[in-house]
Amino acid sequence: MPESSPPSTAAVLVIGDEVLSGRTKDTNSGYIADYLTEIGIDLKEIRVVADDGDAIVNAVNALRASWTYVFTTGGIGPTHDDITADSIAKAFGVGIDVDPRAVAMLRERFPNPADLNEGRMRMTRIPFGADLIANVVSKAPGFRLGNVFVMAGVPSIMRAMMDVVGPQLAPGVRMLSESVRADAKEGDIATPLAAVQKAHPGVAIGSYPFMDDQGFNTNVVLRSRDAEALAAAKAAVDEMLAGLR
Amino acid sequence: MPESSPPSTAAVLVIGDEVLSGRTKDTNSGYIADYLTEIGIDLKEIRVVADDGDAIVNAVNALRASWTYVFTTGGIGPTHDDITADSIAKAFGVGIDVDPRAVAMLRERFPNPADLNEGRMRMTRIPFGADLIANVVSKAPGFRLGNVFVMAGVPSIMRAMMDVVGPQLAPGVRMLSESVRADAKEGDIATPLAAVQKAHPGVAIGSYPFMDDQGFNTNVVLRSRDAEALAAAKAAVDEMLAGLR
Repeated sequence: MPESSPPSTAAVLVIGDEVLSGRTKDTNSGYIADYLTEIGIDLKEIRVVADDGDAIVNAVNALRASWTYVFTTGGIGPTHDDITADSIAKAFGVGIDVDPRAVAMLRERFPNPADLNEGRMRMTRIPFGADLIANVVSKAPGFRLGNVFVMAGVPSIMRAMMDVVGPQLAPGVRMLSESVRADAKEGDIATPLAAVQKAHPGVAIGSYPFMDDQGFNTNVVLRSRDAEALAAAKAAVDEMLAGLR
Repeated sequence: MPESSPPSTAAVLVIGDEVLSGRTKDTNSGYIADYLTEIGIDLKEIRVVADDGDAIVNAVNALRASWTYVFTTGGIGPTHDDITADSIAKAFGVGIDVDPRAVAMLRERFPNPADLNEGRMRMTRIPFGADLIANVVSKAPGFRLGNVFVMAGVPSIMRAMMDVVGPQLAPGVRMLSESVRADAKEGDIATPLAAVQKAHPGVAIGSYPFMDDQGFNTNVVLRSRDAEALAAAKAAVDEMLAGLR
């Protein structure tokens, strides 16, 4: 991929009432954020929606139209509240049925036909035209339809699926970053930091206040795909901070 | 509030590149989810967007049209990348300027006029028509405009603001919940659990697989605002699980 190509973009869609109720704290979106940053893809949006067909369809259609890739987590299990696969089929306007490839995968875990019951057979329903995403943990696959990657909500399974999906993505030029602890209050560096940002437009400079035992402090984070530009901006921040002391 | 009123709904909008890059793991949305569940308000959607004016404006306008309340976190500090207040003003089509009430609050922390510099004065810019949300931690206020509550991103400050905002919200009938550890694989309970759900339509029954040292297991969570209906559904789940053993 030439350096001049615009970077690929992505969104994460977390599906599940249990995250919205606060009962489960979502860690999947943070994991995917780290994963994508590592391979140079810009995560642009995260959404969490309920186990509700219309909410899923509307979110999937909004996100797949806006970004290069969409990653969903949750709602592909065997129970009545798992409606992600049907909702994705509806979003794409395609049919859905039991997929022999998915059945074969589940048979590896459940060779006894009696164990491949109605609930587990729900997990073999795959939208027409989708490619399967292997699940080395518990066999029931995820799938890819168009630019949408549908993965499990259980973190260990989602991570295993992400390792399958990763090589299918077009990697970008990796975003580089530098972090500087300002040892100053954010309000005391805001104006000179804005001047540094203005002088270094190719570097995104963020400022993140925090509190510790010593009181208010600030982390300055610089991000760029250009190592030289990043180094120059960091030197300017260091110089600005030294001037305040 | 009569029991027959539809429950209030809410969305959380997290604003910040640092969450999308994975550098910062968002804990604010989970905290607000717990807080709202506690007072009977249904959180319906969470979004995370970048420090980008158009992204913020579009998300705020979509969310405030869909839900009773919107809570934003992040982007109200003193630096150039803090563009939430201006974006909220733009979303509502109102002006924004230095607000004397906000200046008075900041003066409590910075009585010396030299400390109330250009950066800190940015934090006193409030959209026209907004009510301020006090900040007992670091004084720079959040604000409420229409049904949108704009809060800080630093967790301790956001939590202090939520304690100010909470009493302004119309509380609902609290959602009650019961959790049952199935000691069974999700695929083995899916069909009988669907039957229980069908027989108890007033209770939302969710099924959450997990793995521990003993292997695959499942938590069943039942939620309802009606204590009797909840107890009846829980008894049915317990009976169903006992029948499997």
